[in-house]
Amino acid sequence: MESKSFFRFTLFSVAIAFLLLFTWSHLPYPPPSQVTTLLDCASNSPWCTSKNRFQSKQPTTITKTPAATTTATKRRRHESAVPHHPLDPLTIQELNKVRSILSSHALFKSSKSYALHSVVLEEPDKDLVLEWVKGQPLFPRMASVIARVNGESHVLTVNLETSQVNVLNSAPSSGYPTMTIEDMTSATWAPFSNAEFNQTITQRGVNLDDVACLPISLGWFGPKEENRRLIKVQCYSMKDTANFYMRPIEGLTVLLDMDTKEVVEISDSGRTIPIPKATNTDYRYSEQNQQLNLINPISIEQPKGPSFVIEDEHLVKWANWEFHLKADPRAGVVVSRAKVRDPDSGIMRDVMYKGFTSELFVPYMDPTDAWYFKTYMDAGEYGFGLQAMPLDPLNDCPRNAYYMDGVFAAGDGVPYVRSNMICVFESYAGDIGWRHSESPITGMDIKEVRPKVTLVVRMAASVANYDYIVDWEFQTDGLIRIKVGLSGILMVKGTTYENMNQMNGQENLYGTLLSENVIGVIHDHYITFHLDMDIDGSDNSFVKVNLKRQETSQGESPRKSYLKAVRDVAKTEKDAQVQIKLYDPSEFHMINPTKKTRVGNPVGYKLVPGGTAASLLDHDDPPQKRGAFTNNQIWVTPYNRSEQWAGGLFVYQSQGEDTLAVWSDRDRSIENKDIVLWYTLGFHHIPCQEDFPIMPTVSSSFDLKPVNFFESNPILRIPPNVEKDLPVCKPAASG
Amino acid sequence: MESKSFFRFTLFSVAIAFLLLFTWSHLPYPPPSQVTTLLDCASNSPWCTSKNRFQSKQPTTITKTPAATTTATKRRRHESAVPHHPLDPLTIQELNKVRSILSSHALFKSSKSYALHSVVLEEPDKDLVLEWVKGQPLFPRMASVIARVNGESHVLTVNLETSQVNVLNSAPSSGYPTMTIEDMTSATWAPFSNAEFNQTITQRGVNLDDVACLPISLGWFGPKEENRRLIKVQCYSMKDTANFYMRPIEGLTVLLDMDTKEVVEISDSGRTIPIPKATNTDYRYSEQNQQLNLINPISIEQPKGPSFVIEDEHLVKWANWEFHLKADPRAGVVVSRAKVRDPDSGIMRDVMYKGFTSELFVPYMDPTDAWYFKTYMDAGEYGFGLQAMPLDPLNDCPRNAYYMDGVFAAGDGVPYVRSNMICVFESYAGDIGWRHSESPITGMDIKEVRPKVTLVVRMAASVANYDYIVDWEFQTDGLIRIKVGLSGILMVKGTTYENMNQMNGQENLYGTLLSENVIGVIHDHYITFHLDMDIDGSDNSFVKVNLKRQETSQGESPRKSYLKAVRDVAKTEKDAQVQIKLYDPSEFHMINPTKKTRVGNPVGYKLVPGGTAASLLDHDDPPQKRGAFTNNQIWVTPYNRSEQWAGGLFVYQSQGEDTLAVWSDRDRSIENKDIVLWYTLGFHHIPCQEDFPIMPTVSSSFDLKPVNFFESNPILRIPPNVEKDLPVCKPAASG
Repeated sequence: MESKSFFRFTLFSVAIAFLLLFTWSHLPYPPPSQVTTLLDCASNSPWCTSKNRFQSKQPTTITKTPAATTTATKRRRHESAVPHHPLDPLTIQELNKVRSILSSHALFKSSKSYALHSVVLEEPDKDLVLEWVKGQPLFPRMASVIARVNGESHVLTVNLETSQVNVLNSAPSSGYPTMTIEDMTSATWAPFSNAEFNQTITQRGVNLDDVACLPISLGWFGPKEENRRLIKVQCYSMKDTANFYMRPIEGLTVLLDMDTKEVVEISDSGRTIPIPKATNTDYRYSEQNQQLNLINPISIEQPKGPSFVIEDEHLVKWANWEFHLKADPRAGVVVSRAKVRDPDSGIMRDVMYKGFTSELFVPYMDPTDAWYFKTYMDAGEYGFGLQAMPLDPLNDCPRNAYYMDGVFAAGDGVPYVRSNMICVFESYAGDIGWRHSESPITGMDIKEVRPKVTLVVRMAASVANYDYIVDWEFQTDGLIRIKVGLSGILMVKGTTYENMNQMNGQENLYGTLLSENVIGVIHDHYITFHLDMDIDGSDNSFVKVNLKRQETSQGESPRKSYLKAVRDVAKTEKDAQVQIKLYDPSEFHMINPTKKTRVGNPVGYKLVPGGTAASLLDHDDPPQKRGAFTNNQIWVTPYNRSEQWAGGLFVYQSQGEDTLAVWSDRDRSIENKDIVLWYTLGFHHIPCQEDFPIMPTVSSSFDLKPVNFFESNPILRIPPNVEKDLPVCKPAASG
Repeated sequence: MESKSFFRFTLFSVAIAFLLLFTWSHLPYPPPSQVTTLLDCASNSPWCTSKNRFQSKQPTTITKTPAATTTATKRRRHESAVPHHPLDPLTIQELNKVRSILSSHALFKSSKSYALHSVVLEEPDKDLVLEWVKGQPLFPRMASVIARVNGESHVLTVNLETSQVNVLNSAPSSGYPTMTIEDMTSATWAPFSNAEFNQTITQRGVNLDDVACLPISLGWFGPKEENRRLIKVQCYSMKDTANFYMRPIEGLTVLLDMDTKEVVEISDSGRTIPIPKATNTDYRYSEQNQQLNLINPISIEQPKGPSFVIEDEHLVKWANWEFHLKADPRAGVVVSRAKVRDPDSGIMRDVMYKGFTSELFVPYMDPTDAWYFKTYMDAGEYGFGLQAMPLDPLNDCPRNAYYMDGVFAAGDGVPYVRSNMICVFESYAGDIGWRHSESPITGMDIKEVRPKVTLVVRMAASVANYDYIVDWEFQTDGLIRIKVGLSGILMVKGTTYENMNQMNGQENLYGTLLSENVIGVIHDHYITFHLDMDIDGSDNSFVKVNLKRQETSQGESPRKSYLKAVRDVAKTEKDAQVQIKLYDPSEFHMINPTKKTRVGNPVGYKLVPGGTAASLLDHDDPPQKRGAFTNNQIWVTPYNRSEQWAGGLFVYQSQGEDTLAVWSDRDRSIENKDIVLWYTLGFHHIPCQEDFPIMPTVSSSFDLKPVNFFESNPILRIPPNVEKDLPVCKPAASG
């Protein structure tokens, strides 16, 4: 017994030592020499949440890093910012006020511990916002708060004028709020306090100070996992590479209680699997032996400056577009009140009340012990905006970009700034807006061509290994393209195999052998967008314009068949549950049935699906129940301010009772009503060696496109490019 | 009888007068003030073919227009050009030699009339080209000629060294060669020699000198239309607009014999349908009352110049790519011998032997008399390259573009230059090649982002009203994106309706009411690409990597299901006839089964389909028989040098016996053989008012993407952008 105690003590001491070492090893890497400001949480967010934050009564000036200063236009001092628009996000001062109000509220005052999982603007009612015009006073500012207090989740609103707190809901039927950054970071440390964990690490020949761990949401797979906030942690060797993701300590999974940090269970099945070598895994430019210079410098240049302005920090006005833009901790980017100018009347016409990334669903296709649960919902579990890192000027966005910051609250409610989180820039790729030449047949000397210039709003979220680039691209012809790019680093699996020739035909790798001992596991990505279209007003209808083969009758025509467009107005939600079919094609129109063009067509926008993939999982599979919002590619629901998040408000460990699929199955009426369009962009990803050690970007997009919205081509009258307007440029080095 | 004769004489005289007037009205419009050269057939091709051409023994210097001089790099004098590469197109001198050889050949010498429908390089055998290296002598230069002699079609080869002529084939089972430009232009004049035609025009209140006519291929609809070259002609009013396409003289169709110019039949059913007004139809910038200035000048700038060179006029070398590029009268752009540099070995590796637009199929969806036959095949009927007009510098392509000319032969064999037919430029849209930031979870200070720069090869064909923009876009990560943009002007139908409220519910418009009396008829576009992939050599296999739902067995996993990749190597052609299914997805790999990566994966490229539409017409419908190459989206055939044109060599009036579908149904072996991949990009187009009077560009694309072709990410080592490399620019006006 005594020796056992001594052994325990020794182990514990060693563990503490390793924990200290580990904490040290997690200091910014390489050392944060570029961090010139205490207030900018751009590159250093874990510390942000405990140190460099905006405490009320301690305003300090913001020092910008040189790169940001040269690339971003002059920015406001966040600590003195005030809201100008009903949809403007909560300011530093407002966030501090929420924190102060809550800390003196009975619920929080008496609690042993609490955490604020979300503090965002409670948007005023839609009808109020629609009536509001610039110059009018704002509506009472309200905060929407999701808090965990003494182990229970609460949804509250806080009135910033009256300081009144309303507790709306304290018992979601299942699921927990989005993790805080503190939840995630502390989960990565917790296993090191467990001796068994430390022992298996060292037994695998890995130094504990080389270990980096990731917090992995565990989905939901039955009662065993209910009634407490759980997380799984898996670890990697950081030795000799910044790309630890390529060095999994395979088969080791630590189940943690997120609230107590207690290790509930350790599953340790991969001891025979070697940790893949570090060779060729580091992707940092500084670590490359050779450099590959393929391209001369190239840049998008606007000698007279950009064509857009951003009024009051959030109202973007560009060409014929105007929209409100803000950062959101869960959705990332929120585009509101998008309007386009009618070229005939000059009037700004409503297109979309609100559009954002509602949820992501990323199921991995490996049913084995250390992998089956990987079925991420990146917005509701991790916070798609929380993971949106500062953009790299000149590389994430071109030189002509403007940058916008996010202002968020940490788990204790203290506000912090995520700088350069969104960029806005005009793009010209050399594409053509419209053109016509007369051909030799008619012999007319006509060649009319207009260049295509677009406005891009971009963010890039790094949800641990993966990077999602989300673009909202506005075109002058009224089209909005929403594009998602996938880059970053694969989630890989260790294997004993070094070559495919070691395999017999029967085995299932669940993926591709990417390098010696590294398997890239097959997975899907689904990104579901909430698109509250308001086509010339809120009451709209959803119309499927189905192209059907029509056989001609005997003697009608030398043709046997043609395609006929059959319009089908969806009456209820189930009419609008759409699985796209190549051989039964439709256009999908959101129309205003009460507003017609001059010749009598209803004004509308159509959804043009992109390179969609559909989820093929069993509908009764627990992950697919939770991700049931991917059962169709398109849904239309009546507007309901509580139905924003396709996987439910409380997605973490949810069981799927609050998904878009559940709402839609109520089959409410949707004809000539205020309705919301939902679209899911999908990717199947079978990894290939080119994705190792970091993936070239893969993109897919869909469009919202005017269809009889304008009387005619809205960019008929734009001018062509002429030489005299274009810039005179010289190499910077010669200047 | 006498009075009848007199009437006939009068009518005939009036017709002649109108014909003269009409010819005058077809002079370049507006007057050709910018045409500064007699030799450049850029803007004036109908005359080109009869006047401003390169006659042998009459070389003249080429005068460039100012726009071309400032934008294109120094160009060769075409009349003295010599070939440098086995795939270089026939030069002016060679085309003249072919003409001279043929004119003294028995077949042509004795003929009353002949026309050369195609004179192009007969490419040397593939195995010879593959062995050839720069510096070696060229193989004997050969021309491939398709001629019509005394009403018969002939396929010949002409040896330019020996002057030997081989007549290969003189009796295609059905179909005729691609029309000459002279066929098309003369067809537009022919109706005016017909009194009945002129009478109906004047009776509709239209002046004959306001009439413009279009030559419309008539497909094939049975024996009545066989055994002579026929064409249908429909006409428009040019009064008060350059956009005569929007003013159809509806229901009037003239069936012509293309060889005799005889009017075979006039169908005149639309007398009650008004000709739509000219108001708001002109799209020329000079004709706009108001101008819409939305955007400040914007440009892609490369202060140190482009990163590519074009050696010997045709060999493009950019970044890690190299390929041979040429203009072709039928295909438009031909990309050959595309190779990419392996970043590890430095070796140029084969990717694609030859890629081009093989055929287009554009069926309209209206079975009525004046519309049912509109089922265009733009490459084989009209010549996709013949219709590729000179690009507009600064608007069709950005300022940093290089332009390449096409050198073609007219119907009498005389060569002419289609200047600026292709452009090549580097594009940077602000996109991201790859990226990763470390998230707050791990806290590492990493943000590595690489910009994405591509090389675009572009042409734009104006097949009468429609404009097709075809881009071949090369990426440094090894991806090739083939993008088709549709712009130009709709083919519209006259109607008595001015507003949708005049319709009762039962009627079928076959399209959308776009403006008063104008219907945009529903139609499809299919563009079929011939992609002779050679992945590290010619012998390849086609593998479907099917993602199948796999249900787990009882107790195997908490998961019920996952997706499993099942590889299926196609043995024969029928295994590779693919209709894409969203709910039964596959990846489509072209692999080299004998070449493996370091870890044992076969090297390959995958076809990534884009926003595809499938043809839904009845397979027994005559147009679909001819367009049967659209019955599947993907086909793979063994390499056969005679199988280049998916609709057949003689597409005009063909009956569908020589299509890709027929070849593929032979079900030849395709495993580990020299094989060709075919992909069809499809669009359904239900017109909308925004398409009036000219359409904003709609694009779709597909990718050829390396899949385990490289050992790892081939652009891992490219540098990020840094400020000091970017240009210093100022507005031109201030300079």
